[in-house]
Amino acid sequence: CVWDTNVRISLPAVCFVWQIAMIILFGVFIRYNYESDTHWVEYMAQQNITSNIENDFYYRYPSFQDVHVMIFVGFGFLMTFLKRYSFGAVGFNFLVAAFGIQWALLMQGWFHSLDYTDGKIKIGIENLINADFCVAGCLIAYGAVLGKVSPVQLLVMTLFGVTLYAVEEFIILSVLHACDAGGSMVIHTFGAYYGLAISWVLYRPNLDQSKRLIGSVYHSDVFAMIGTLFLWMFWPSFNSAIAYHGDGQHRAAINTYLSLASCVLTTVAISSVTQKKGKLDMVHIQNATLAGGVAVGTAAEFLLTCYGSLIVGFCCGIISTFGYLVLTPFMEKSLKIQDTCGIHNLHAIPGFLGGVVGAITAAAATPSAYGEEGLIETFDFTGNFKNRSPNIQGGYQAAGLCVALVFGIGGGILVGLILKLPIWGDPADDACFDDEAYWELPEDEENIPPILEYNHNMTRKQQEV
Amino acid sequence: CVWDTNVRISLPAVCFVWQIAMIILFGVFIRYNYESDTHWVEYMAQQNITSNIENDFYYRYPSFQDVHVMIFVGFGFLMTFLKRYSFGAVGFNFLVAAFGIQWALLMQGWFHSLDYTDGKIKIGIENLINADFCVAGCLIAYGAVLGKVSPVQLLVMTLFGVTLYAVEEFIILSVLHACDAGGSMVIHTFGAYYGLAISWVLYRPNLDQSKRLIGSVYHSDVFAMIGTLFLWMFWPSFNSAIAYHGDGQHRAAINTYLSLASCVLTTVAISSVTQKKGKLDMVHIQNATLAGGVAVGTAAEFLLTCYGSLIVGFCCGIISTFGYLVLTPFMEKSLKIQDTCGIHNLHAIPGFLGGVVGAITAAAATPSAYGEEGLIETFDFTGNFKNRSPNIQGGYQAAGLCVALVFGIGGGILVGLILKLPIWGDPADDACFDDEAYWELPEDEENIPPILEYNHNMTRKQQEV
Amino acid sequence: CVWDTNVRISLPAVCFVWQIAMIILFGVFIRYNYESDTHWVEYMAQQNITSNIENDFYYRYPSFQDVHVMIFVGFGFLMTFLKRYSFGAVGFNFLVAAFGIQWALLMQGWFHSLDYTDGKIKIGIENLINADFCVAGCLIAYGAVLGKVSPVQLLVMTLFGVTLYAVEEFIILSVLHACDAGGSMVIHTFGAYYGLAISWVLYRPNLDQSKRLIGSVYHSDVFAMIGTLFLWMFWPSFNSAIAYHGDGQHRAAINTYLSLASCVLTTVAISSVTQKKGKLDMVHIQNATLAGGVAVGTAAEFLLTCYGSLIVGFCCGIISTFGYLVLTPFMEKSLKIQDTCGIHNLHAIPGFLGGVVGAITAAAATPSAYGEEGLIETFDFTGNFKNRSPNIQGGYQAAGLCVALVFGIGGGILVGLILKLPIWGDPADDACFDDEAYWELPEDEENIPPILEYNHNMTRKQQEV
Repeated sequence: CVWDTNVRISLPAVCFVWQIAMIILFGVFIRYNYESDTHWVEYMAQQNITSNIENDFYYRYPSFQDVHVMIFVGFGFLMTFLKRYSFGAVGFNFLVAAFGIQWALLMQGWFHSLDYTDGKIKIGIENLINADFCVAGCLIAYGAVLGKVSPVQLLVMTLFGVTLYAVEEFIILSVLHACDAGGSMVIHTFGAYYGLAISWVLYRPNLDQSKRLIGSVYHSDVFAMIGTLFLWMFWPSFNSAIAYHGDGQHRAAINTYLSLASCVLTTVAISSVTQKKGKLDMVHIQNATLAGGVAVGTAAEFLLTCYGSLIVGFCCGIISTFGYLVLTPFMEKSLKIQDTCGIHNLHAIPGFLGGVVGAITAAAATPSAYGEEGLIETFDFTGNFKNRSPNIQGGYQAAGLCVALVFGIGGGILVGLILKLPIWGDPADDACFDDEAYWELPEDEENIPPILEYNHNMTRKQQEV
Repeated sequence: CVWDTNVRISLPAVCFVWQIAMIILFGVFIRYNYESDTHWVEYMAQQNITSNIENDFYYRYPSFQDVHVMIFVGFGFLMTFLKRYSFGAVGFNFLVAAFGIQWALLMQGWFHSLDYTDGKIKIGIENLINADFCVAGCLIAYGAVLGKVSPVQLLVMTLFGVTLYAVEEFIILSVLHACDAGGSMVIHTFGAYYGLAISWVLYRPNLDQSKRLIGSVYHSDVFAMIGTLFLWMFWPSFNSAIAYHGDGQHRAAINTYLSLASCVLTTVAISSVTQKKGKLDMVHIQNATLAGGVAVGTAAEFLLTCYGSLIVGFCCGIISTFGYLVLTPFMEKSLKIQDTCGIHNLHAIPGFLGGVVGAITAAAATPSAYGEEGLIETFDFTGNFKNRSPNIQGGYQAAGLCVALVFGIGGGILVGLILKLPIWGDPADDACFDDEAYWELPEDEENIPPILEYNHNMTRKQQEV
Repeated sequence: CVWDTNVRISLPAVCFVWQIAMIILFGVFIRYNYESDTHWVEYMAQQNITSNIENDFYYRYPSFQDVHVMIFVGFGFLMTFLKRYSFGAVGFNFLVAAFGIQWALLMQGWFHSLDYTDGKIKIGIENLINADFCVAGCLIAYGAVLGKVSPVQLLVMTLFGVTLYAVEEFIILSVLHACDAGGSMVIHTFGAYYGLAISWVLYRPNLDQSKRLIGSVYHSDVFAMIGTLFLWMFWPSFNSAIAYHGDGQHRAAINTYLSLASCVLTTVAISSVTQKKGKLDMVHIQNATLAGGVAVGTAAEFLLTCYGSLIVGFCCGIISTFGYLVLTPFMEKSLKIQDTCGIHNLHAIPGFLGGVVGAITAAAATPSAYGEEGLIETFDFTGNFKNRSPNIQGGYQAAGLCVALVFGIGGGILVGLILKLPIWGDPADDACFDDEAYWELPEDEENIPPILEYNHNMTRKQQEV
């Protein structure tokens, strides 16, 4: 049989080999930075820092933990909505993220945290946040192929995804010097198109053979709401986690809070108006309500203004919900892109819009609005970039968006071709969306007491019949 | 038919109109404050602030995120206990909160954060917390009418609720200059009586027609514990989120932690002693364990003492559990108040007691216990209030409690009358507590594989019969 | 009948008597410390502290809340995996923790926070964290006896457990002056052997009478993942919560993050390679993935190095998963130790290894690696201990590990004998792992609408037959 989901050799092999490689590479390259090293106390004395509270740990650790929850509980539970793929959703999400953050620390470290004096990568709390961010891109991509790939394919996808991410991030943030604190471009646009391109290459014409498993059940929709809500609540932390200290983090949190609130209202409105009798659809509530957070990722740090944030959320709730209603079925039928979680509506479009909003907001920045110093700080117009003007910055922001798109689509097609090889243990068309393939499932549920009795009763009734 | 749950026009209309109004009003009124604006760097220089860590963001953001979790996951999941109303519980809670926080930012802003030099409301992290608090009042009220109202009614209820809240809060905190950091009066007493009064006006004599749906099932009780625990764990953040920097926040967290711990013990004791064979009732564990947090809302910041906190929790666990056993059925039968979640026992009584405890603790304050400076700081005896003595303060605290009661009951009756109009799409008596009315539900569960097979088996057995 | 699960007198009596005792003892002994008292403002002036942000509250509160979530949601939900013991898992965990933290504040206070000038215990945020830690030890022990004991037994177990914990902690941290920021020895080794020894004494030869209830069902495994993930995500906060300000907390968080990530990969590898067709086992994913956090508890603060953390996690994932596969069945059959949650694999072995890793890392410390000041600060070589060298410190660390073992096993046997008395209302062998014994359960599930209809259909079909 072509479809053999046996991963008993490949999965452990990849995990072991990779983890050993990580240990070696960490041994060679990764060290604590000056804020997490025992020499911090001497550094403080040298620099006249009078308090431990100035350690970046205290500026960013609460946001880091919120981001961590988004990655593991948020993404994990959001994908539990399928009736029989909750183990895969939350379990493979866990595996992929734990795998990816290690490689991300290395890849991003080489580009951003390399100490050229000794050739070591020096890490601190900001690196942990960035590793979580990097993995977020891969987890978004997982949403497009949820239920259709093997865990080994996911690990391969993550390995290449993290690598591509680190490169495009370096180009966008360092070479082009674009800003993207919340990652509308770097994380969401890249991650979503990466996943969609892979899904396009892996198109399964006979996927309707597992149609019976594509929907949700009552409880699985409630589980998915755990994911939705933790993503929604902590998105202000996501967008502010690596923003500048002080007003930068403060403003990013406010803008995200507002955009998300606005987005909920228009999602509900569109969901209701398009259904019979005005009933709401859980798919929309679980997903489109989050689009507002994606779309202020780039501009959250800027002077987007409070009403500007509301407008962004307003539009994204509408667009994202229509995406679920119209685009997802269209893409499946006409473009041969099967997008299990509808990441095109939740990440691709809002991420793209977020990049556009960021470019416009940057281009419109003025010294009178930002203050001379504020403008320099917000866009980091220092060093090589000290003569850059806001409208030029707007252009570079737009260029950054293109880079994210190219890396996402191009990288996705290449990785998709690799994943098409018949060696990865992916499930047959009629075995998709089923935990049975990769998980030891609990014995059938007849053993639960109340249902047990009820069975017995029935059997008895039947016997009476 | 009188009962038409079609909200296909009204729900989208309210969401759209309201969200557009919000955008306009935010455009006219809301601006970043000095701590979230790009001019913060200049402000620091002017004020000789040497570190970004002095930005209020770093004092309050972790508490804000905890409060945010309480509002969306805590309240949302606490109400999922009904066997067939989990979508409504968590989904409408989400809608109402996202709707309410925007209006709260405006209403509270006009009263508390208006900059008279330019007529703008200047917002920062404390405003976000206060908006969450304001919405908490409305979500408490939702608990009384859970399963019996349409989403449109909930939005109307929230619109008026937030408005009333902002006014009573202004009277209590600014005019009377009472303290209420954790909102025993402002949030819980007001919110609970507001909801109970509405429920009284909307009394449904034939509600037992949907009796089959009023209870829980095993899994829904576990879901509800997610809500309970996040409320319980983060309540110290709730009561300390807007307390004074330093010892104020520190003490509020400790007092709340202790009161809640004590409350769990007496809840278990009463639940066990009143049931056959000493079995525990999930309703009590899910709700009465939280009463201790409500009841130290006002006094958490004061020198309530550690054992005082334990005593408050001790009493509230007992009273609240007896409330569920005795008062809720009595109120339904004799007072015609149908209180789905028993908010009378969890918020009304403990909130009222919290106001009383606050008044007594304030009246008993002495300079020797608090220190001269500590007394002034704790009760903010500055400006117009610098000659106020602690016992006078106790009187004003009591007056504040009365204001909360009057606004809750009075406002609730008025809003209840509005909601009685037959235009809101509320469900028929036999369709209450059922997600069917407002949600697209997943197809029937026969499609889940194990049960599917099991059906087949049965059918086969039946055929054999 | 010998087995009478009626706890209607004993449970309320213990709760009431104990809570009243707590109130009296708190009244006599517990006071706010200088950072949570209203005199803080005067203290700041005296000490030239210029900012409220220097209050320890702001260094530790975010970590405290994360630890709080681990105790109540983490441990509680991790144990919901049984098909019919979710109420007991999450509910008794709640009761035990709320009960234990109060007694822990007193016991630990007498040893560590007693102000000899007035004989009072002065508490602040660090005491709350330590109380949560202390209770964690007892909740670990609960894992070994889950489903086999009554709530009264749990309270007795916690009462003695907290007492023993406080004594061993005092010996290890103060007398031996060992370091154990994340509690590999003090919390995990002690707690696990305490629970295992109790379970050994309470051995039930006929436990297979309740075999039908020992497994999980699909949904209960998803609930358990909530516990797993919150433990996993917040473990960096657990290990850094009481570490030294600045680089100490920063480094502890990084090391824990890395060890946990590595542990996930090897857990998945072993789980897959040992199952038919490479399928993963939820028991391993839920538990063994956490072993890496346990095992860096002692050394997280030290210069364990980043790759060292990966190695620790690597080994623990392997060992812990093999524990579930091999040791747990062996211990049950040959050693008569029934360990419901497999705490031997998740806490005992990794905790022991963590103690060993800590001793080695401490012994290997050098002034050149740590810096003179860094070495003194990391190991607190001050006062009576200022002449202690790192290798001597390594010896004391090892001695601390022995103390934890002795207290765990010895205390467990004694407490087990007490719990063997036939007065505690524990369940019969065939009624273990069943919420029926101590909880009012929702009525049978036939009332849920979709299943209701489905019943009707069947009855109709049957009638047609």
